[in-house]
This record gives sequence, C-alpha cells and structure tokens, in this order.
Amino acid sequence: MKELIFGVDYYPEYMKEDRTGQDFAMMKQCGMNTVRIAESTWSTEEREDGVFDFSFIEKVLKEAEKTGMQVIIGTPTYAVPSWLAKKDPEIMVRTKSGQAFYGFRQLINIMNPTYRFHAERIIRKIVAAAAPWKCVIGFQLDNETKHYENFGPEMQAGFLEHLKERFGTPEAMNEAFGLNYWSNAVHSWEDFPDMRGCINASLAGEFERYQRAQAAAFLRWQADIVREICRPDQFITHNMDFEWRKFGAAVAQDGYSYGVQPDIDHVEAAAPLSLAGTDIYHPTQSHLTGKETGFCGDEIRCLKDAPYLILETQAQAFKTWTPYPGQLTLQAFSHFASGAMGMIYWNWHSIHNGYETYWKGILSHDMEENPVYLEAAKIGKLLKEAGKDHLCIRKKNAAALVVDNTSLSAFKWFPIDRDLSYNDVVRWIYDTLFEMNVECDVIHASVLNPADYEVIITPALYCAEDSLIEKLKTFVKNGGTLISTFKSFFSDMDVTARQERQPYALTDCFGMSYQMFAEPERLYAGGKECRYFAELLSPDEAEAVLMYEHRYWGRYAAVTSHAYGSGQAWYIGTYLDRSVLREVLEGIPALARLRTDGETSWPVVIRSGMNEKGRNVHYVLHYSEDEELWRCSYEHVTDLLTGKEYRKGEEILLADWEVLVLEEAETEEKI
Amino acid sequence: MKELIFGVDYYPEYMKEDRTGQDFAMMKQCGMNTVRIAESTWSTEEREDGVFDFSFIEKVLKEAEKTGMQVIIGTPTYAVPSWLAKKDPEIMVRTKSGQAFYGFRQLINIMNPTYRFHAERIIRKIVAAAAPWKCVIGFQLDNETKHYENFGPEMQAGFLEHLKERFGTPEAMNEAFGLNYWSNAVHSWEDFPDMRGCINASLAGEFERYQRAQAAAFLRWQADIVREICRPDQFITHNMDFEWRKFGAAVAQDGYSYGVQPDIDHVEAAAPLSLAGTDIYHPTQSHLTGKETGFCGDEIRCLKDAPYLILETQAQAFKTWTPYPGQLTLQAFSHFASGAMGMIYWNWHSIHNGYETYWKGILSHDMEENPVYLEAAKIGKLLKEAGKDHLCIRKKNAAALVVDNTSLSAFKWFPIDRDLSYNDVVRWIYDTLFEMNVECDVIHASVLNPADYEVIITPALYCAEDSLIEKLKTFVKNGGTLISTFKSFFSDMDVTARQERQPYALTDCFGMSYQMFAEPERLYAGGKECRYFAELLSPDEAEAVLMYEHRYWGRYAAVTSHAYGSGQAWYIGTYLDRSVLREVLEGIPALARLRTDGETSWPVVIRSGMNEKGRNVHYVLHYSEDEELWRCSYEHVTDLLTGKEYRKGEEILLADWEVLVLEEAETEEKI
Amino acid sequence: MKELIFGVDYYPEYMKEDRTGQDFAMMKQCGMNTVRIAESTWSTEEREDGVFDFSFIEKVLKEAEKTGMQVIIGTPTYAVPSWLAKKDPEIMVRTKSGQAFYGFRQLINIMNPTYRFHAERIIRKIVAAAAPWKCVIGFQLDNETKHYENFGPEMQAGFLEHLKERFGTPEAMNEAFGLNYWSNAVHSWEDFPDMRGCINASLAGEFERYQRAQAAAFLRWQADIVREICRPDQFITHNMDFEWRKFGAAVAQDGYSYGVQPDIDHVEAAAPLSLAGTDIYHPTQSHLTGKETGFCGDEIRCLKDAPYLILETQAQAFKTWTPYPGQLTLQAFSHFASGAMGMIYWNWHSIHNGYETYWKGILSHDMEENPVYLEAAKIGKLLKEAGKDHLCIRKKNAAALVVDNTSLSAFKWFPIDRDLSYNDVVRWIYDTLFEMNVECDVIHASVLNPADYEVIITPALYCAEDSLIEKLKTFVKNGGTLISTFKSFFSDMDVTARQERQPYALTDCFGMSYQMFAEPERLYAGGKECRYFAELLSPDEAEAVLMYEHRYWGRYAAVTSHAYGSGQAWYIGTYLDRSVLREVLEGIPALARLRTDGETSWPVVIRSGMNEKGRNVHYVLHYSEDEELWRCSYEHVTDLLTGKEYRKGEEILLADWEVLVLEEAETEEKI
Repeated sequence: MKELIFGVDYYPEYMKEDRTGQDFAMMKQCGMNTVRIAESTWSTEEREDGVFDFSFIEKVLKEAEKTGMQVIIGTPTYAVPSWLAKKDPEIMVRTKSGQAFYGFRQLINIMNPTYRFHAERIIRKIVAAAAPWKCVIGFQLDNETKHYENFGPEMQAGFLEHLKERFGTPEAMNEAFGLNYWSNAVHSWEDFPDMRGCINASLAGEFERYQRAQAAAFLRWQADIVREICRPDQFITHNMDFEWRKFGAAVAQDGYSYGVQPDIDHVEAAAPLSLAGTDIYHPTQSHLTGKETGFCGDEIRCLKDAPYLILETQAQAFKTWTPYPGQLTLQAFSHFASGAMGMIYWNWHSIHNGYETYWKGILSHDMEENPVYLEAAKIGKLLKEAGKDHLCIRKKNAAALVVDNTSLSAFKWFPIDRDLSYNDVVRWIYDTLFEMNVECDVIHASVLNPADYEVIITPALYCAEDSLIEKLKTFVKNGGTLISTFKSFFSDMDVTARQERQPYALTDCFGMSYQMFAEPERLYAGGKECRYFAELLSPDEAEAVLMYEHRYWGRYAAVTSHAYGSGQAWYIGTYLDRSVLREVLEGIPALARLRTDGETSWPVVIRSGMNEKGRNVHYVLHYSEDEELWRCSYEHVTDLLTGKEYRKGEEILLADWEVLVLEEAETEEKI
Repeated sequence: MKELIFGVDYYPEYMKEDRTGQDFAMMKQCGMNTVRIAESTWSTEEREDGVFDFSFIEKVLKEAEKTGMQVIIGTPTYAVPSWLAKKDPEIMVRTKSGQAFYGFRQLINIMNPTYRFHAERIIRKIVAAAAPWKCVIGFQLDNETKHYENFGPEMQAGFLEHLKERFGTPEAMNEAFGLNYWSNAVHSWEDFPDMRGCINASLAGEFERYQRAQAAAFLRWQADIVREICRPDQFITHNMDFEWRKFGAAVAQDGYSYGVQPDIDHVEAAAPLSLAGTDIYHPTQSHLTGKETGFCGDEIRCLKDAPYLILETQAQAFKTWTPYPGQLTLQAFSHFASGAMGMIYWNWHSIHNGYETYWKGILSHDMEENPVYLEAAKIGKLLKEAGKDHLCIRKKNAAALVVDNTSLSAFKWFPIDRDLSYNDVVRWIYDTLFEMNVECDVIHASVLNPADYEVIITPALYCAEDSLIEKLKTFVKNGGTLISTFKSFFSDMDVTARQERQPYALTDCFGMSYQMFAEPERLYAGGKECRYFAELLSPDEAEAVLMYEHRYWGRYAAVTSHAYGSGQAWYIGTYLDRSVLREVLEGIPALARLRTDGETSWPVVIRSGMNEKGRNVHYVLHYSEDEELWRCSYEHVTDLLTGKEYRKGEEILLADWEVLVLEEAETEEKI
Repeated sequence: MKELIFGVDYYPEYMKEDRTGQDFAMMKQCGMNTVRIAESTWSTEEREDGVFDFSFIEKVLKEAEKTGMQVIIGTPTYAVPSWLAKKDPEIMVRTKSGQAFYGFRQLINIMNPTYRFHAERIIRKIVAAAAPWKCVIGFQLDNETKHYENFGPEMQAGFLEHLKERFGTPEAMNEAFGLNYWSNAVHSWEDFPDMRGCINASLAGEFERYQRAQAAAFLRWQADIVREICRPDQFITHNMDFEWRKFGAAVAQDGYSYGVQPDIDHVEAAAPLSLAGTDIYHPTQSHLTGKETGFCGDEIRCLKDAPYLILETQAQAFKTWTPYPGQLTLQAFSHFASGAMGMIYWNWHSIHNGYETYWKGILSHDMEENPVYLEAAKIGKLLKEAGKDHLCIRKKNAAALVVDNTSLSAFKWFPIDRDLSYNDVVRWIYDTLFEMNVECDVIHASVLNPADYEVIITPALYCAEDSLIEKLKTFVKNGGTLISTFKSFFSDMDVTARQERQPYALTDCFGMSYQMFAEPERLYAGGKECRYFAELLSPDEAEAVLMYEHRYWGRYAAVTSHAYGSGQAWYIGTYLDRSVLREVLEGIPALARLRTDGETSWPVVIRSGMNEKGRNVHYVLHYSEDEELWRCSYEHVTDLLTGKEYRKGEEILLADWEVLVLEEAETEEKI
C-alpha cells in the first residue's frame, strides 16, 4: 500500500439495482482508493445451506481491478442468515435476560458448534474465492467481535473446566474468591452454580475475563483459517470498537465511542492480527473536540506499536450530526495525527431499509453529489498530493496511560456512583492530558513495560498483581514519574481487597497511606468541590500537594507527591474538579516537560510523530469554530497541505476547524 | 334518538347491593336519558362455561323501560372470565415480553379459536336477549379494541400467509424490505424468523399494519354477528380510544388521550360500525385547554363524517383531577362543539374495589349527591331545554390535518428524540391551529380526498405512496394550499427511503429540495431555537420564509413557500418554537382566511357547524379561569343556553370557563 | 446480661487466615463484650449434605470463654449452600419476574419442603452444639426474614386453601373483594387464577397479608425448634429490618432504613421471640439527623414494650459515608436513647471478597487500628463506666403514631404519586414530631390500645376495621386527642372503599366530612403550597384551622379541629408543607404539652426514660456540626458520661455532635 488508504465501506447487496460502475466512478472522482466489502452479507453469499454465490463480491472485485481500487474483504460471520438460526436455535446467544431472538446482528453464541461449522465453511469459501484477486489487499475478521454477554451452556461449561484447571480443588477456588461469604462456597465441582446468579465480584470477574478470552479465541480461530488460505502479502485485521456511551436522549442510533471496550480485551484480540483496525464514532458539530479520536487512536496504535487502519468512521448525519464545513477534513487528519495509515468511511451510500437508515453514508439516499461528498473529494486530493510517506507517522511517546479490563469489571461490580464508571475516570485523566497537549500511549496493564516511559499514569487501576507493582516501584526508583488516582492498587487480579495498608505495597513509594474513604459532601480541594469518592490520605513522608478543605477531613490530603529513589510518585485521592486536576497535572514537572510547547492548549492540539521519510511531522488541529492565533514553535516547517513554510515564533491565524500538517525541514532526533 | 344522549356507564354488577331503582331515579333527576351497560361483565353473565344469566342486564332493562331511559349494550368480550382463561391458557396474549397473566382486562389473544368460540356464543346470547327490548338503542362492540402487542402463533402464522400472498416469493419480499441488510434475507418461507427479533423497520412496519388489521377484523367479525341478530334501528358502535400519554409522575391511573391510536387503525375499525364512538380523557383543573377534546373529536367525527358518540369521558377525580365549578359544563359542550350527538360519563358511581377505584364516577363512593352530580344535573337541564336539533351540528371544514398509522410506526422505528414522537409533531400543528381558531378535519391519509379541502397539512407524513403524492400535486396545481413539515414524504408505504432528492417527487411543487439534515445545536429560526431535527432546505425556486440563523447552516432555509400552479406549497423543515410556528401559520393566507374571525384566539375558542334546523351554530368556549372580553362577530345570534341575543360588535364578558352556544338568526350558507 | 451489649458481627469464615485470638484481643481492648456469629455461613458448617463441621463456631466459643466475651449464634438459614440449591432447584423463590438464580442471599422459597427439611436439621445441630456453652447468651433466628416476593406454587396453593377457609364459597370471596369488576369473579375454586396477574387491590392485599404471614410463620417454626433445644436463660431474637430506601444515585449498596417493613409484619414476626432485635442503617456525615434511629427504635421497642437489641448497625464507609469524629459516639447513644439494651456493629472487619466489600467494618481491610476503631474504644469505655443500670431505659410515651401493613399495601396499589409512598406520609409526621421533641410510640394498628395514650396520630391509615374506629371514637370521647391525615379510614381491611361519607364513621367525631378530593395545583394552605393530594373538607361542626387558599377550593378546609366528648379530633386533609405541618402540630394543645420542654427543638433532641435504678434519664443528642447553647430544663441532673452536674436554667454549650446523658438526682414520677 503505497498510498494512505482512503475509502468507504460498500454494500452493493443493499441496493435495489446494480450501481457498481457508477459508484466506483464517483469514488475515484472523490480520490478514494479502497472499499471494504462483504462484512455482514452472509445471507447473500449463501442463500441456502451449502449453496454459495459470490457474484456480488466478484462484481466488485472486477470493477476494482478495472478501476485500480483496492478491496478489503470482511468475513461475513457477525450476522447469520435466517436459515442457519432455524437450523440450530442455540446459535442465538443466551444472556442473563434469556435467549436473543434472531434479527439483530452480533447476538450470536460464538461457542456454538453449528455456528462454528458453518462459519468456517463460509470463511474458507470466501477467502479462497477472493484471495487470488490482485486488488484484495487484506481481510477483516468478523466485525466488532465481543462475547455478547454470553452465559450459554458452552460458555459456562468451558468456564467450569477453566476453574478446575486453574484451581484443582473447589476449596482452592473458595479460598481465592472468598466464596464462604453468603454461603457461596462450592465443595464439589458438581455443585458449581449457574453464573447468572453470581454475586461475588471475584468469581464474576474471573468469568468476565473468561468471556472476553473466548471472544478473542474466536478471532484467533478465524485468523488461523484465513491465514491458511490468503496470500502472504494480504493483511489480516479486525474492526475493534470501544465502550459505547449513550446520550440522555437515548434513541436508536444515539451514542459514540467512549472508552475501554468491556467485552473483549483488545490486547488478546489484536494478537492474531497483522494489522490493527478499528472504528471510531464521535460527537461532531459543536461537540467535535478530538478527544474521542485521540483516545481511541492512542489505544489502537499501541496494540501493534504501528500504524493502524480506521475501518469505519462516520460520514454524515450519524445521530443526525452532520459535519460543519471543514469538520470532515479535520476529522480525517485527526486520525492520521494519531498514527492511522488509512481511513474508511461508513459508508458509501445511505441505506434505504433496515436499522441504520439514519446512519448516513457519504452519499445521502438520493445517491447524488452533496456537500459532504465534495469535501471528501477535497480530502482525497490532499492525501494524494501530500503522500503517505509524508503523512503517515509513528510515535514514541514518553507518557503511558495504563488501562485494564479487570479493573473495569471490578469497578462495575463495586460502583461508586451511577455517574462515574471506570471509563469516566480514565477519560477524566486522558482528556486533561489532551487539553494540555501531552501525548500519551494508552496501554493495557498486562503489556506495560515501564522502562519504555518517563511518566506512567494509572487512573483507577483497581486490580494489580504484585509483579506489576514491583515493576512500578522500580520504575520510580530509577527516575520515573508515577501518577496514580484513587482506587488504584486496592485489590489483586482476583478482585480480592488487599489486607494491607493502602495503597498496597506502595505506601513507601508514595510516602503516604490511607485507611478510610468518605462520601465527599461539601468537600473541597484547590477551592473546588470534590465529587464521588474521597480517600483520606495521611501524607506521612509525602508532600501534601493539596489538603482537603473541610471541617473534619481537613486533616487529610487530597493529593500527595513524594520523591522516591530518583523518581517521583504522585497520588490523587479524589475526583478533583477538572480545572483543579489540570492545575495538578500541569504542576508535575515530568508532565510539563512533555507538553508540545510550553503554551499551546486545546482547542489547538498538536500531535506529532516521525514519517516514513524520517522527518518529524506535527499535526496542528484546531477544534473550534472561533479563529485562533497560534505561534509556531518549530524552527522551520512546511505545511504539507498548502506548501506554506513557517518559522519559529511566526504567528499563524488558524481558521475554524483548520488543520495544518507541519513537516520539519530536516530530521531532528528530538521526538 | 330525539334527544342528545346524556348519561352514564353503569355497572350494577360491581355493587354489593341492588340500587337500580335508586340509581335510575337519581339519573333521571340529573336529566340523564341513557346508560351503557354490560361491557366487561362476562364473568357475571356466564358464571360457568355455557351457563348464562342475564339477570343484571334484565333488571336494568326493566328499570329503563319503566323510567323511559335508553340503554346501550356492550358486548363483554374485552375481559374474559377466569374459567375461560383456565380452559385454554393460550387465550392470554403473547407479546415480546412473554405471555400475559390473567387478571388485567384486554390482554387477550384475539386470534385464539377458543376465545373466538366463546366470544361468539356470549355475543349471540346477549344480543338475542337484549335486542327485543324497546329501550335498547344500540350495541357497543367490545371496548377499546387493539392488538395488544400480539406476537402469538396465530398472529405470526397469519402474517406469514399474508406475506406469501403479497409477495409470492421470499426474494420479492427481500427486495421490497431490503432484507439483505445484516443478512436478514429469507430465501425459503420455512426460514422466516420469529417477528419478536425483527430489526428491519420495513418488515416490522408491515407486521404492525397486519396486527392493526387483525384488531379491526375482530371488530368486523363482532359487527357481523351483532348485525345478524339486532333490530335494524339499533346502532352498532365501538369505543375507540387514542394514544395514551403518561405524565412524569407515572402512577397507576395517570395519563390522558393524546394522539393517533397506534394499535388499531381507526379507519378500518370504523368501517363495520353504523355509529362512530369514542372515549376521551383529558387533563382538567388548570390544565383544561380544550385541545384534547378538539383533536380527538375532530378525528372521530371524520371517520363517518357524521355526529358521533362519546361513550366514556371523565366525571370527577380522574388522576385526582376534579373539575372546578363550571368546568364540567364547559367539557360537555366542548364535545357537542366538535359534533358529538351524545355524551356518556364514565361512570355513574365510583367503584369500591378493583383497579379503578380512583377513576371516580359522577357519584363518589358515598353514593350521595355532590357538587359534580349537581353540575351534571344543570347540564342535563340545559341540554333538554336547548334540544338536539339546535345543539347537534355537522361541519364542513376547509382544512385537513392528515394523519397516518404507517408513518406513526415508522417514526417509532426511526426516532428523532426520546421527547418527540409522531404524535408530538401532529399535536404541535393541531394545537397551534386550535389556538388560532382554525377548525380542521383530522383525516387519515388512506381516505384523504384532497378535492374536499382548501388547505391540507401533513405533519411528519413520513410514508406516502406515489398516488397520494400525485393527488397532492394536483391539489396544489388546482389552487390548494399544502403545508408539510419535516419528515414528510421521505419513504414509501414500506418504509423504504426514497432514492430521489427530497422531498420526494415534490421538489418542483415546493420549489425546494434538501439532501442533508442535522442535529440542531444553537440553531435558530425566527429568533427562537429550533429543536430535535433540522432539514437543510435549499430554496431554489421557493421563497425562503425563514432562513436558519447559524454560523454554518445560515445558508439553508427553515421554512419555504412556493407558488405552484394556482396554489401554494409551504414546507417547514424543523421543529420551530411554538410561537414561531404560530407566526408562520398565521402568515399563510389560506389559513388566515379560515380563522373564525380575524382576531379571536385561545383561550377563547369558537367551533361552528350547522344544526339540524339548518342554522349556523357557534360554540364559544372559554378555557380560562380569568374573565375575558369577547366581541361578537356574528350579525345576530341567540345564546341557546340563556336565550340572550347578541349583535355584531357587541362586547360580551366571558366568565371563567364559560360557554355560549350562539345560533344564527337565519341560515346563512357560509359554513 | 449485666452490661449493655456492645460488640460486633463476626465472620472468621470470611478470612483467609485464622485471626481469632488477635481479633478478640482487639475487641476486648475496644471495650466490646459480645459477638454475633454463624448467620449466613451454612456452606461452611455443612460442606456437603449431612456432613457437619462446626469448627469455626467452636473456635470462637472457646476464645470467647477464654476472654470472657458473650456470643449470639445466628441460625445460618438465610443463605443456602450451592449443593442444596442443586438438590432441589425449587428452593429458589419464584417471583413475578421469574425464578431467582442461586447466588444472592435470601432469595429462597421459604415454603419449599426440601429447604425446610435441611434448615431444620442444621438448626438442630447448631443449637445443640452451641447451647451448652456458657458464653452463648442467645440465638438469632435467620436474618432479615421476608417473603421475598414469593409467588411460588406452595405460596399460591396455601393462599387458595386460606381463601377457602376464610370464605367457604368463591361467591363470598367475589362479594368481599368486588371481583365482578373486569370479569375477575371466580365461580369455582378450580378456576382461581395465578396471583401473578392479579389487578384487584383487595385480593392482592389479602395475598400480601398471607405472604407476610408465611414469613412470620417461618420464624415461629424456627423459634419452636430452637426453644426445644436451647437453655432457658438464652434469648431468642431476630434481626428485623425496615423499608429500604435507595438514593437517586442508586448503586449497589446505596440506601438506608426508611420506614415500615412491607414484606413482613413486625408484630407477627416478634411474637415468637423473647427479645426484639433489629438492624438500623442510616445516613451519616452531614445527613446524620437521628430521625431514622428514632423512628426505627420507636417501632422495634414497642413490639415487646421492652429494651431491644441492635443486631447490626453501620461502622464506617457504608455507602462510603464515614462518620465524622464524634458521630460514632452520637450514633451509639442515639440507640440507647430509644431504649436499646445493646448495640452490635456490622461488622468487625471489612470483607475482602464478595458483595459487601464496601460495607465496611470497624476495621478497614488492612485489619489495623484506625480512627473509627479508636472512637469505638472510647464508646466502650463510656458504656462500661456509666453502666447498664444507668443507661438502659424504659419509656412510657403518651403519644402513639399508628402504622399498618395493610394500609401500606393498599397505598401501593392506589398510589398518589411516584414521590409519595405510605412511608413518606408516616415519616412526614414522625420527623416533624421528632423535630418538635415529642416522643412517641410507633405502634401497629392491630395491637393499638388507645387507652394507653393521650394522643393518637394516624398518618394515611387507609384501612381500618370497624372495631378500631369504634375504639378511636371512644378514645376521643374520653378525652383523648386524635390526629388523622388524608387517606385515613377510607377503606376496610379488605381495601374495599367505604360506601359512606368520609371520613368513614368518624364524621361526627371530626365534625367534618368530604366527598371530593383533587390534584393540588396552585393550592395553598398556611401560605405554602400543598402537594400530591387534597381532600376538600367541609367543616360542618368543626373549626377550620386552615382553609385552602385557592380560587375554587377556597371554600373547603385543609385542616379541621373538633371537640368531641371530652377530647379533640384533628384532621389534616392534604400534604401540607413541612413548616405548615409543624405549625399545625405545635398548635395542638395535647401535643404541645408533650414536648420535652417548651422550647428545645431539633437539632437538639431529648429522649427520656427511666433506668433500672428507677431514675429519670434524659439523653440530650445534638445532631449538628455547629455549636449550640442549650438551657437545662431539669432541676438537678448529672451527666453520666462526664460526671458534670447541671441545674435548671443553666446554659450548656453543646459541641458538634455532642451527647449528654442526664440522670435526675432523685426519682420523680413525672415520666
């Protein structure tokens, strides 16, 4: 792939007439070079059990080869045909709420053998049919795979086997999970109860981990099948998504990508892939902030520490948000600024029937050119002119934001407040870093190598194993800066609360400990109200960066800092007001050093990396409808989009939603 | 029926002692002439399978004949006896949430053969027993019949047969409904899935239409049975109701009649009837506005284009609303102002046990006279004195508000916002017309004859077939005024979005088109905020009546107007603020001409028609607790309630909640 | 028990190591003398069917005897082991929402024979094992027993037998419950329907009464078993709890003890006990008001008219509320001020796994001393120094607040507003009395003996039988003061609305009647808005204490007062604003006389009684974080906590959350 991938998801199957030729012509005119197809179209490709028909796919491939477009083939397994659901009713997933009805996509029992048999067959057929075509550059496995809250018989039986293997005896399990509580102990494996009733966060946490692992295993299984058949130069990717956050108005297609995906572990999911892929849907219009694109991109990029592919992102009128003029461009370059190597819109044309009629494509239902199409065409032109070797960047960030699926689960089982989830804490930190212009990796605790970073931040890292804690201590000792928030290190990976003074095994590192926490009522820190939860920190050796302001809790600290070895350890014991959090983070020397330049902050965001030419590139992204004067902080840069050159100190008037892509004149080693 | 019907729903079965004589004496004293009985009393009439006992009915009939009262007999089928539910458990409806338990009324599987067998038997028995009595003036079929969210086996099997008949092959269905989407296509009828899982709005819309049709078929089936047995002079009616809207405080009996009934199509329901009947429950006390009575009456009246019967309406303390002094009178005349030929209170006496103890009757639980009873007696006297031939009116409205059950369903499947349903859009228009004193027919799209009107208004008429659109174009060409709102004409009757520029097939008529819509954020029109949804109109040939006020969307229009042929077509592309909507509507010449007099507006509402004497009658209804000076706009009228005469220009001080019924001195042809 | 009980609930089974010796040492050091154990630990005591192991219990008993601690043994029946749930799946309760899954405690079908068989066996074994130990002072039956919404087969079959017994014929039942309504009548017992569908409040009320009775019968059955085996000097108690009220933020352990327990009748539950026991969880930190402790204590004390035992109450960080310094002490003495003879914290140490990890104990998870532990130690010292014979009091209150489970049920079936439950009305009155410093008994209608009181208050006593009403009339005639609120006396005990003028059979007593009620809209009384519901009172003979302020309802009274015989009857027809209610209650002479001293009011609360020395004791409780000057109103008292003496008129500066326990110098007969 010599160009940045730029294209659309394309479903000719959904049209009432053949428009392939016309559609490809319009795409080409728009500067597009890639389509993703076939995902979700099983019922078209196998109309009856064992009878295959890939004519839709072939028509696209033929047209692609004719016009010089690239194609990504999705395995169609995430939406089963009705005949298959009839053949074995157990294909539909059984959750806590009962068995799903056929209709909605995804709600499949991915462990069902009938499903696996037929999935394997269609995958083999489709890959065999598509792989030889030159235009086919890669395969996408399934789509947005998760465990779908599977509590079905295979999942539960498998889990029991897993427990037997892990523990040997039920007594060992009782011990680990504290099952004596409420008489939940199991003294014979035969008595192991239905997990649907489980109320023990330790046992439930293990089950959720097992569920996530099965979803990842399903992807690995698909990857093995595809790899067996496809060409070596074809990539294998998957479309990973995020926690989906609904708005208050909660209607059908309301929501957006928000945080760590609870129902599959991205590290496990990414393992069998050769290319990380994702979809990111984010607020736009007056709510376009870049934060979702940033957070999601930073997480996906780290999975392979390499450029990744946006397999879906919104075109127009998703949740009836339609991008303002200029926003489509800013959105596209936001992805490249995070290190993407391509971007595919969902989808080409709006759909005339079905569930997602209002999740509109580049084209409206009228299939004509429109303002969004025309802006996409401008983007296509810019991408081609600037070129992949200039635009596609790699990063080496000095800060790591540590996330963890086990902690996310535990947080759900021991909630603080209806309005504060694990991901809220993660985003509270991430968004503040984003506003400060500190770039960070978003990295899962399971694969964190502290030595790679100068600063490590753990928001609500509730579950942590001893070895990780040891590594973090060593990290600080050796000069690193550790920043942890409330609810970090409270339990082990089995959600067993530690039986030691908190923060567990790190009281010497933080120079502080706490025994109590309280509901924050009229509790202030830094002059602003604290919310949700307040650990009452006793800063023994540490410096009390902020004391609580409160009649009774005023004797305790809200934020502490402590020099340990040659490093520093910071602890934030409560949900500070955003402005106070920002002041605290800006006051941490190691973080301050990482700010792009000492002063730029959101809505002007700078995201940097080194391109394939070995040059430093700085994406300057302006998330605002107001103009803003920005002072160039680079010696000598050229805007890849306009060719204009800028020198250090030069003032640049950023228009609304404007983006600059500044390439440094010569390679400097500073990134 | 020489008098206006005035009476109560009467349930002697619910009393612990026989009070028939006493009750009838009190009713007579109150000026009442009619009772509706027997509805919902199956378990009293058939205490065990096949053993009938109509003694309660006969006692009432005897007393009625003795006292000169009229009786309407309800078939008791909407509440089944417990023995019948035991006999065949499948009598209870199966919905998406599972099978209903016995207890609540209505939740019946109306397609169950056992139910039909027993329903037919009791109907035949009861009609045969009652029809010969002179006092029996008519029959009410069942009560508030709907499909009760029936997803039961008969409903689903019937639907499949319907699909086979409509489409012949599954492929034709796939094509029509776009079932390739998410692999939902069906390639063999055997694979047709359970509709409970359906996610395709087109297929679901067809199913909901089928469900509604079955509810109507059930009524037709009952009508045929009754008609076979009853006397030719006895009417057959049914109690149609409306979308029920709950208040925020949502407790048991909270709510009121709000809009188009989603679960049966009133046009189909009314077809087999000889008299349209309805119940209307509305807010009262400080929330008595007349709008619900107006809307519901205007819809029911149009079903037969004839006087209709209020079979139930509230007496006192419905949702603990108790009418202020004067309101009961205003409420009663509001019904006659819409063209009712009678009004029956629900119910005579408050019930001492059961679900509706707080849905109070004319009498409180103490069975004594009370202020509400005494006001009802005054109404009875007024009705008798003025007489049916003076009070009962027919209308010939020049404006039509077009409603449609298919569009309602589609709006639910593609919701805009939790707070904006199809009926909200309908009421947004209707209520504004009501406030302006423009009377309109509320007419279903399926039976609209545009030639009957001067102005046609389509609020959110999402689904429209080509023939209707053609008729509307012709209507405008010929001089009519068409007013359409956002979300009109977007799809066909199968909820397939049109593949042409919007508004589909009417861009020339409106002189305008749009390709995009957006979430309205800080979006204004007419100086006020737009809400929920905004189509971005390009007023090519049209006049931009209102442009959006917005940094980016300011180039698009919110409201357009266009002369087409000899008529005019207006389009409102967003949910305007109420005050702006009113200004827009007042600015439409054809509507302005239809206002009762150029100036009167809510809370003084004038509703007019021609009475049986051939004279124009104007009901002047004052929905306010403040006095208001109103200037008479009629040459010479007499208040039928007081005998007072008024001349044009005369000022009349309307007391709180006052009503005048002004009859013109001689017939004028102007209505 | 020569000392006040002071201790903790203790679960060594939940720990990963044996800490018994260490824990007991820490408890002793903290001044504790009692532990409650074994409740909920069935799976530890009977690891497999029929194999018993009481080693955990024995270890505790041994340590207790060694260290001189007392032990209360809980029967473990409220949490079943997994093997038992496997043995008979019907052990899990079937509710309206289906069958519960195994996992959560309590959700048991207490009528299941398998469950009963195994419960009896373990109870017999455990009591036999524990009773001989000297340190065992008593047994707690089960825990927080309720019917758990049981709609299972045994419950329904038993209910049907109960109906047959009560009514003989179905017709008699139809008559009593008004089942002709909506054809719900049953004419053969075979046709009696599943209660899950019941919509008749009378039948449902009878069923709920039956459900409550079965929960109580289950306790009686346990009591009989225990009594057969235990020593005569060992008490039998049970841990009764209250309606649990969630906060808005509704997360797992959010909520507190709020009002009358809906799912068991405390009078029935207490009957087989020798000692009333309870748990009280209440808001703390800035929400510590004393009201929950007062209300719950006043109800539990009256069950046996004797000192009672707090078997559970919060230590720290329940719902993340952690007591401010001083609050733990105030909380403890609040219980003794209500007449408790002991108090046990839930629980000793915080739990490291399971559902209640954040429902923290005296010790945090680190098992070390902490500020809460240290304050508990101070309390232990104070209790020991002052002594049970001085601190433990009995009361003879002159005022009774009457509560009733049948009325609570009925209120739920005929709700006024989502935000106003039966218990809200009860608390509206109770809290106002509490603020006025009028102590009252909280007594169930079924056991009320009016002659015991000077003032009787009935908040929303919706259901009342004729004999009670007669007794109340006689009470007033003889000089008593009756204060009733809206919704009192409306129906009989079968939730049948009375067919007479309201307030039923008391119109002469109140000198007032009403026929109508209304939704209060812009309705005022005493200058403040009335909410939820307004009865329109016609004060015929009565004095209108407050008239409504309203355009139409201004002719009716909101509050009336009437001299009847030598007493007085007051009626409050609406939900008055709190401040107006307080003015009304303060204006009732009989209540004013009962105020502790003419002036003290909340946040200073005085609760009095006579101790075992025969001396009057006055607990002065200061529920505020602000200092307050309080003037001593007793001739000569000694503070049992400090030894300080005070004289009448002396000013005492109460510190934040301070408590005094003032013992009068010599016995006066005035209490």
